Amino acid sequence: MKVLWIYAHPEQRSLNAALRDEGMRALAEHGHEVRLSDLYAMGWDPVVDAGDFGHDRGERLVVTRASKHAYTSGGLSDDIAAEHGKLAWADTVVLQFPMWWAGMPAILKGWFDRVFVKGFAYGVTDPGAGGRTLRYGEGVLAGKRAMVVVTIGAREAAMGPRGINGELNALLFPLQHGTLWYSGMSVVEPLAVYGADRLGDADYKDSAARLRERLLALPTSDPIPFRYQNRGDYDDDHVLRSELAPGRTGLAVHDARTA
Amino acid sequence: MKVLWIYAHPEQRSLNAALRDEGMRALAEHGHEVRLSDLYAMGWDPVVDAGDFGHDRGERLVVTRASKHAYTSGGLSDDIAAEHGKLAWADTVVLQFPMWWAGMPAILKGWFDRVFVKGFAYGVTDPGAGGRTLRYGEGVLAGKRAMVVVTIGAREAAMGPRGINGELNALLFPLQHGTLWYSGMSVVEPLAVYGADRLGDADYKDSAARLRERLLALPTSDPIPFRYQNRGDYDDDHVLRSELAPGRTGLAVHDARTA
Repeated sequence: MKVLWIYAHPEQRSLNAALRDEGMRALAEHGHEVRLSDLYAMGWDPVVDAGDFGHDRGERLVVTRASKHAYTSGGLSDDIAAEHGKLAWADTVVLQFPMWWAGMPAILKGWFDRVFVKGFAYGVTDPGAGGRTLRYGEGVLAGKRAMVVVTIGAREAAMGPRGINGELNALLFPLQHGTLWYSGMSVVEPLAVYGADRLGDADYKDSAARLRERLLALPTSDPIPFRYQNRGDYDDDHVLRSELAPGRTGLAVHDARTA
Repeated sequence: MKVLWIYAHPEQRSLNAALRDEGMRALAEHGHEVRLSDLYAMGWDPVVDAGDFGHDRGERLVVTRASKHAYTSGGLSDDIAAEHGKLAWADTVVLQFPMWWAGMPAILKGWFDRVFVKGFAYGVTDPGAGGRTLRYGEGVLAGKRAMVVVTIGAREAAMGPRGINGELNALLFPLQHGTLWYSGMSVVEPLAVYGADRLGDADYKDSAARLRERLLALPTSDPIPFRYQNRGDYDDDHVLRSELAPGRTGLAVHDARTA
């Protein structure tokens, strides 16, 4: 594999950093190549701004339009272009972060806000199919795999199907389905480390072993079977056809395992 | 009302800015007080860092511990303390943003990451109840109301109960339930403006009228009836009791309207 590992934690002496080092070492030991985007260490700027696109501040900024223009004309800022280079190189992306307020830290959310520009991660059309938009399973990033590695303060039960925090895959839906799958990437099940604020030695060793195992299995792990937009499951308004998951609502209907 | 309006859009000549101005004007005309946190205009820093807490960079940063220490000892950075002051003043909070990658722009996510510190928005215990943690309906921010105002590129059908993007309230669950309700605030239904990239004049007028109406009705609007953690609906593991929404899973079980 060629793995781009995106890491979003402010502290190099943390549980997250230890897991990152374990995981990257295991990949290297098995002959895989790894490149790291350590967002805090890079001083990554997460705020979308006219400067990202070389956009004239005297003119109204429309992010979709300005980002597509900058992308197609080679005018994106250097830090964004560098991440595009890493993504072009990678066949696999690991996204590692502590869950803060039921989602990604801002520095990682803003990696997507800035790097996933129009023409690259959305607004991609297929001239061969009447200009149909390529999204949800198709697009520039199709063929790549992604896995979330997340540490969570709560205990596992509170993140289960009826746990008060909401089930993990539902909380990750905006990232796993709305962002990664949207842009074409396949997403395998996330690896979660629960009770992260009070992890004992044995729990740490268990988590590190699970991480190594999941990473090495990545090339052959079945991805979450999210439904494709353009293969017949949705109608022209992008609503799931009534014969699929009949009578059901909620995020799970977009997973083809939901009957 | 005393309304804190938190605005997260990079452009002052945008649909979002026009709606913000309409909404703030309607509130003022009806005698309500409004304060604005315009995050882009303020140059808000969304990245949690040791400097937020006056934390010694030579020592390992544990965000929970460092933030609580800084909060209780008056050592939070000035920009965070200023937002706490506004929240203390407000009885109502409006959160306005364009939906980017199925969630908030990073600058707004990082408003919560930095402002919602331990001891203030989480990790609040009730000495009167055996040190029970006050969250989900209880806490420092209980008694305040919040409303999301969001512009969305997609059409409404694609954000409905079976729409491919996921239903709006499920996408907003990390914010509305996992953040606002978690910290004690009541949350009314969001106001969404769909098809925001190609809104005609009539659609704009309709959206502005809906916004004015919803804002002025805020004090008497029924909030989303999320379940309280500490009023008997959940067991000791914070799992919903089996007799409530029996046999069901998914985020909707945490809304008391789900039978």
